[in-house]
Amino acid sequence: MNIRMIAYFLGSILGLEGILMLLPCLIALIYQEIAGLYFLAVALLCWILAALFARKRPENAVFYAREGFVSVSLCWIALSAFGALPFYLSRQIPRYEDALFEVISGFTTTGSSILSDVEVLDRCMLFWRSFTHWIGGMGVLVFLLAILPMGNGYNMHIMRAESPGPTVGKLVPRVRTTAKILYQIYLFLTVADFLALFLSGMPWFDALCITFGTAGTGGFGVLNSSMASYSVAQQVITTIFLIFFGINFNVYYLALAGKLREALRSEEVRAYLVIILASVLLITWNIAGSFSSIFSAFQQAAFQVVSIMTTAGFSTLDSDLWPSFSKWILTTLMFVGACAGSTGGGLKVSRIVIAVKNVFKELQSLILPRSVKVVRFEGKAVEDATIRCLGAYFTVYALIFFVSVIILSLDGHDMETNFTAVAATFNNIGPGFSDVGASCNFGFYSPLSKFVMMFDMLAGRLELFPMLMLFSPRTWAKE
Amino acid sequence: MNIRMIAYFLGSILGLEGILMLLPCLIALIYQEIAGLYFLAVALLCWILAALFARKRPENAVFYAREGFVSVSLCWIALSAFGALPFYLSRQIPRYEDALFEVISGFTTTGSSILSDVEVLDRCMLFWRSFTHWIGGMGVLVFLLAILPMGNGYNMHIMRAESPGPTVGKLVPRVRTTAKILYQIYLFLTVADFLALFLSGMPWFDALCITFGTAGTGGFGVLNSSMASYSVAQQVITTIFLIFFGINFNVYYLALAGKLREALRSEEVRAYLVIILASVLLITWNIAGSFSSIFSAFQQAAFQVVSIMTTAGFSTLDSDLWPSFSKWILTTLMFVGACAGSTGGGLKVSRIVIAVKNVFKELQSLILPRSVKVVRFEGKAVEDATIRCLGAYFTVYALIFFVSVIILSLDGHDMETNFTAVAATFNNIGPGFSDVGASCNFGFYSPLSKFVMMFDMLAGRLELFPMLMLFSPRTWAKE
Repeated sequence: MNIRMIAYFLGSILGLEGILMLLPCLIALIYQEIAGLYFLAVALLCWILAALFARKRPENAVFYAREGFVSVSLCWIALSAFGALPFYLSRQIPRYEDALFEVISGFTTTGSSILSDVEVLDRCMLFWRSFTHWIGGMGVLVFLLAILPMGNGYNMHIMRAESPGPTVGKLVPRVRTTAKILYQIYLFLTVADFLALFLSGMPWFDALCITFGTAGTGGFGVLNSSMASYSVAQQVITTIFLIFFGINFNVYYLALAGKLREALRSEEVRAYLVIILASVLLITWNIAGSFSSIFSAFQQAAFQVVSIMTTAGFSTLDSDLWPSFSKWILTTLMFVGACAGSTGGGLKVSRIVIAVKNVFKELQSLILPRSVKVVRFEGKAVEDATIRCLGAYFTVYALIFFVSVIILSLDGHDMETNFTAVAATFNNIGPGFSDVGASCNFGFYSPLSKFVMMFDMLAGRLELFPMLMLFSPRTWAKE
Repeated sequence: MNIRMIAYFLGSILGLEGILMLLPCLIALIYQEIAGLYFLAVALLCWILAALFARKRPENAVFYAREGFVSVSLCWIALSAFGALPFYLSRQIPRYEDALFEVISGFTTTGSSILSDVEVLDRCMLFWRSFTHWIGGMGVLVFLLAILPMGNGYNMHIMRAESPGPTVGKLVPRVRTTAKILYQIYLFLTVADFLALFLSGMPWFDALCITFGTAGTGGFGVLNSSMASYSVAQQVITTIFLIFFGINFNVYYLALAGKLREALRSEEVRAYLVIILASVLLITWNIAGSFSSIFSAFQQAAFQVVSIMTTAGFSTLDSDLWPSFSKWILTTLMFVGACAGSTGGGLKVSRIVIAVKNVFKELQSLILPRSVKVVRFEGKAVEDATIRCLGAYFTVYALIFFVSVIILSLDGHDMETNFTAVAATFNNIGPGFSDVGASCNFGFYSPLSKFVMMFDMLAGRLELFPMLMLFSPRTWAKE
């Protein structure tokens, strides 16, 4: 294990976080909030650490997959540990574990909050909370790859460890160029979303924060009512952009590169849109009776479905009051999640599609044992290793899920609360149902349960293996 | 598809069911119940059908895997369709879908009931209800193989389709001999259980029915209080025998064949016992406060854990009133289930063990990409095909699970009720929690939901693929 190289990464990421903290400082300046000084202080601390650990690249640049995984996990933990400090030091979130929960929920684009009243927070704090969604959405180490000249070679290990999905496709041969293209698309969509919201009449600060929450599919808002008090037009804009941000970014790249036909053929995106449409129609049918018009029911159903499926977790009403049928569809969507290579969480549509195709293959080989059928996805044969890894992924997922729910239930609360609390944090959604429903928060859980959910949020965002590896003795063994 | 051969199987199985129905007739005779005549009438009907379809074996004995799967599914459906008739004709269960639910719950060794009061049923009906557990426990077609000279060759396809577990091991080269050995062990343990209960002072009729429910890990009792009103000694006897019936029967065969050391090395049985012990200790700790002594808490925890883990579903108290932590441990155990090759349901311990080992292998190959590691289980390398099939199994399992819960939720009811209703039927347990808890029943669900749960019980007992195949056009296609 190349500890120096990992320390170098950690230093770099903290240096970057220090720079990013200048933005909330700017907001504090605009709104003349004294709390901005805490961001400046933490930024200084970050830069000192960066100067100590990341002044120059270590001579020994040996960097294998395990270094990649460990760097990614530790960087996300470090980012969160320091990102929580302004909340804590300013006493706007008085307990450190709560501040940490909030900022991990931000970076992992979960959007679960321990705050019962977000409107009492300073603007600079609200900004930082939402900004962490944007930073975490596309992957912060991918960002580092895009801006820092780090040499090639180990880039791929970082990219693979941080990017969501069963397989990682480089868009172009150079990882750094891939990272840059991804961030350009991300930035373009973000600006478009902001302009649409701003031009529809939303105050610029709200528009900015909601855009961050939409782009990262995070779901933190700036009002206690989440998005309920915004206009229908603004809700529709957000619905549409959430759909955009939940799509695999490779598809945009293909479209930009002139391969529009190939982009439109994406099986994952088609499955994603079909699942959204089917869920919206079923829920519209189920809830129509309690709305003044079928259009209104459709619009609300669409917002909730898209918000959950893309794992944002914004809300426009308390869906906890919906009938069981609608709630179970939403709960199921929590596990499905968005496309791989998007900013969304969950199991990812591509994993589900490949898994289902594998089922058909198995059924066929049971019926006709001599038939050889390869699972094909997006026009390519899926490697056996990918399918094996998928099985392992589902296993780890289920184990972490059940262990988490069992630990949370030590606090009491009903089954629905604990089940959806873990579903909502592990899949990076935000709110669950019952006591952690859209009108509630996660503040009442014990510190132990909060730490479990913090682990779940990180494990969910980084797709399990990087976080697990921290606990494997083999990772730290000398080769 | 060799339809004649399948019809031959169906006829044979109905003929067998007719013979088995003579036992409730005998009970009716003893207790002088008129309802016994319904069993006689249905038995006659079965024999007529058997005479029509199974008089002699078809010339064309072509019999492949798909014929095996389809025969097994259709036989189980036919068994249930006719097995439900005495309940329905006697009006002791006035609606046919309820009678069907009850008898499918019996054959699949689930033990979920639609009856709010079982004590009003005639003795012969109660006997048949429990006896179906015993018939379904070890597999009814396996029984057919054991008693009828069916030739060899296609036996294995039947055995594979009906026996639970990720792989099927023939104990001896001849399938028929294997089936006989399994039934001898089954019979021996059944008699031992009955004698233990009877000698401890339980009335012989209760002892017989409870033994059937224990042997098949089904869980139907003859009292509304399930097992709560029996003595502690009788509860302990049942706990111990449930553990025995949840163990892979291959292990008993090894022990009988003098390979005791090999039997004791079984990884699956060790994992099974460790999970039981750990769960019992955790729940004892959790509930100790509400019991007069730690021993009493331990005994109750052990009963509930074993009853759920072996998927019997007997109860000695209303565990729905236990704290969340204990309830979630029990819920998790519902999914784990008993050993493969036992009479228990659920995912099976061996599937979990293989899946977890595969995770370690994947983690290792992520850390050290060049390492080649084969998953080993019970001293043998697990084939790649088995691991792929495991992934497909988990996928189908999750899909059926979520679709079932969504359909059930159309009836309303809280999330806990619907979630545990499906968990309890799909894993062949019996009662769930909340509105389907140990003191409640499944009678309030709509016919649609009941049919979904009937499908789940059959799919769970037959391990998914045989039931799914009935719906695949390829199964019925001409080759």
